[in-house]
Amino acid sequence: MSEHVKYLLSEDDIPRTWYNLAADLPDPAAPRHPGTGADITVDDLLAIMPEALARQELSREREIGIPDGVRDVYRQWRPSPLYRARRLERALDTPARIYYKYEGVSPSGSHKPNTAVAQAYYNRRAGITRLATETGAGQWGSSLALAGALFGLDVDVYMVRVSYEQKPYRRMLMETYGARCVPSPSPETAAGRAVLAADPDSPGSLGIAVSEAVEVAGADPGTSYAGGSVLNHVLLHQSVIGQEAIAQFALADDNPDVVIGCAGGGSNLGGLAFPFLGRKLRGGPEVRIIAAEPAACPTLTRGTRAYDFADATGLTPLLRMHTLGHGFVPPPLHAGGLRYHGIAPLVSAAVAAGLVEPVAVAQTDSFAAGVRFARAEGIVPAPESAHAVEVAVREASRCREEGVGRTILFGLSGHGHFDLGAYERHLAGALRDEPHDEAGVRAALTAVPGLAAATDLAGLADV
Amino acid sequence: MSEHVKYLLSEDDIPRTWYNLAADLPDPAAPRHPGTGADITVDDLLAIMPEALARQELSREREIGIPDGVRDVYRQWRPSPLYRARRLERALDTPARIYYKYEGVSPSGSHKPNTAVAQAYYNRRAGITRLATETGAGQWGSSLALAGALFGLDVDVYMVRVSYEQKPYRRMLMETYGARCVPSPSPETAAGRAVLAADPDSPGSLGIAVSEAVEVAGADPGTSYAGGSVLNHVLLHQSVIGQEAIAQFALADDNPDVVIGCAGGGSNLGGLAFPFLGRKLRGGPEVRIIAAEPAACPTLTRGTRAYDFADATGLTPLLRMHTLGHGFVPPPLHAGGLRYHGIAPLVSAAVAAGLVEPVAVAQTDSFAAGVRFARAEGIVPAPESAHAVEVAVREASRCREEGVGRTILFGLSGHGHFDLGAYERHLAGALRDEPHDEAGVRAALTAVPGLAAATDLAGLADV
Repeated sequence: MSEHVKYLLSEDDIPRTWYNLAADLPDPAAPRHPGTGADITVDDLLAIMPEALARQELSREREIGIPDGVRDVYRQWRPSPLYRARRLERALDTPARIYYKYEGVSPSGSHKPNTAVAQAYYNRRAGITRLATETGAGQWGSSLALAGALFGLDVDVYMVRVSYEQKPYRRMLMETYGARCVPSPSPETAAGRAVLAADPDSPGSLGIAVSEAVEVAGADPGTSYAGGSVLNHVLLHQSVIGQEAIAQFALADDNPDVVIGCAGGGSNLGGLAFPFLGRKLRGGPEVRIIAAEPAACPTLTRGTRAYDFADATGLTPLLRMHTLGHGFVPPPLHAGGLRYHGIAPLVSAAVAAGLVEPVAVAQTDSFAAGVRFARAEGIVPAPESAHAVEVAVREASRCREEGVGRTILFGLSGHGHFDLGAYERHLAGALRDEPHDEAGVRAALTAVPGLAAATDLAGLADV
Repeated sequence: MSEHVKYLLSEDDIPRTWYNLAADLPDPAAPRHPGTGADITVDDLLAIMPEALARQELSREREIGIPDGVRDVYRQWRPSPLYRARRLERALDTPARIYYKYEGVSPSGSHKPNTAVAQAYYNRRAGITRLATETGAGQWGSSLALAGALFGLDVDVYMVRVSYEQKPYRRMLMETYGARCVPSPSPETAAGRAVLAADPDSPGSLGIAVSEAVEVAGADPGTSYAGGSVLNHVLLHQSVIGQEAIAQFALADDNPDVVIGCAGGGSNLGGLAFPFLGRKLRGGPEVRIIAAEPAACPTLTRGTRAYDFADATGLTPLLRMHTLGHGFVPPPLHAGGLRYHGIAPLVSAAVAAGLVEPVAVAQTDSFAAGVRFARAEGIVPAPESAHAVEVAVREASRCREEGVGRTILFGLSGHGHFDLGAYERHLAGALRDEPHDEAGVRAALTAVPGLAAATDLAGLADV
């Protein structure tokens, strides 16, 4: 029997439709207009995105067709492999069967091109010539830069300053693809200038970078905003991951008892887990879903569920989601892709409904799991993905303690080739766990609309 | 029709034997003992490698079985994809059909694990506990570090100092896999100390690093030397690349007129091209093979064919090969994997027999081709591979000029994720082309055994 098992599908098995959890979830709260409080309409969104994406954002249809022009690009690396982690199982001496779906095979090294390609396709078709976006660790920015190169679109990336400085190779990758990369907060936008005026040394945050990109897109009809996570249409595009995994588990004649994904904005978790969750909601097999988030930016485990802005300065529609407050600036984690004050409304709704369990993971634990995984399986995980690895290791250890052989699937959303500086610091014992900034969150939550009047924020208000 | 075409094989199609060009080449000159001048024997090699590898090194058998324990690890990323570069073809407006075989899908990002895994397997089986090796750009060192982690072997890597400083992420990758990485020349070995005594600021060279690794392996029975290129058994292991490509061209119902590989030590070129060359030598289809080497280290185009040492200080057997002199220290190219004074004897013999055409490529041309390829096909090539891209672009441009639609295959031996600093310098216009150090080569050639007495070195002596 083969030692290392991968389950491959043919190109014909690339899904032909995206799966939309909003069709199966009892209450996928709609975004609201911050001025009127009314539900957002397609027209409201047209200022920053083309109609096709605006319609997907608000759609409740279960299946939405994937254009041939998108599938043709997916073919370069999709279907992505599903691996059985036999060497890790042996290293952990666990009766668990551990699988991982590996999205690092894309040209930019993560799951992000699944939506970058789709967004570039629709924008190109709508006559847009430039995309503006934010990026944290740079996985998203480099993926949109890639998609821009393939579809002939200019790409401006506002990159969170702390990541811009920590991860120069990600910036260089974007520039090699032809994109322009700007450290955020920047003096290029009113939003950036306002943050810099208050704190010239601001490390930046995903929320601030979103503000800059949305401002730029709103000011120029030829420019669209392209979101890397959080939004419904982004999670929709990522559903190819979980749909493929379901087909691959059929090949493996197995089925996951637990599905684990890291969660920052929520698109990786949603992309992997929602097809499994939807199957369960429609009467299919039971499945536990775990969202692994960083302990120093604990949106799901310590945040409040409310209507809040997706950006730092209040330019976006209000999204109903777990939030630490749109003005909260999380500590400078190495898993920059998880460093976000909010979470996708669909993930938030699934957590609120008890369908997804959130777990907070300390940074040092995630890197220790990343090294363990690299030495067993040969792939160095992205720091974000390492959060999922750590939770998978914990679940496999529980199986050993309980003497039960469950099937565990986790998402290896990307490789850590551009994050080796952080691994070096970890190996040198120089990484520390930033404490959760409880006081900062309390202060930020008072600025959330509707929460300002709330008297007690300690009890995880759900308003 | 699909826009981007990849040709995948199933895991069952991973070759079951390695192909050995020495069986089909009229005169694959045997290595010689530097003391006696006699042909090297298996016994001579046992001081630094296990018997299985020593036998492969001297074998003239055409096919050598791949152990199941090696194929099982290959399954993680093999068969590697063959891509049709349709977007590049369109960008070049060429009637040529351009294909590339992409080895960057391995966990360390290059073709090097094909032999690292095999060498680790045989050493582990022979009871060896530590491997010592050299590395230039770090593609090889990180691949051996990976293989060491998978087979439970300690790995010491002597990394050429200039690359150690240029490519810190490669060192970090080796350390994440658990290997020890030492800048070479180092004070750890007599060879390193001798170089440092003569030049404390030596940038190092592959030849010097080989000396250090061979010295360490020779001094400890529990330590083997593991070579990343040049040696016959290394080219043997790499033959999986070309064998898969032949099967993939059958799927594509096409056949390459030209096969292009970059050549430093020669294992990438040999791995891709030799199965095609062997087929031709046995009466199969005609094929042109081009070796792309750096203009600033032009072993094949400006070197002399002679028996010379594989390392800088004369610890290895004498290999019959094109050489710039074992003491020659090439200028600090970014394509560190091509920065070697010699070349695989099998490649040298094929060039001498007129079966392989060498072409020298300037560094700036290679990076320009790398950027062009990245923007068309989405993958950033390793600087070494970019030399092959440049030659493929030239061949495709010739097809346009001549109005002839040939089929071009090139080897994309690895990705450039760890080389983005060099791309940044290229994009900033800060890269320059180091001149070929003709005087340095003349001086170094006088130290080559047998050439010392030669009166005229200008005419590319073949002794």
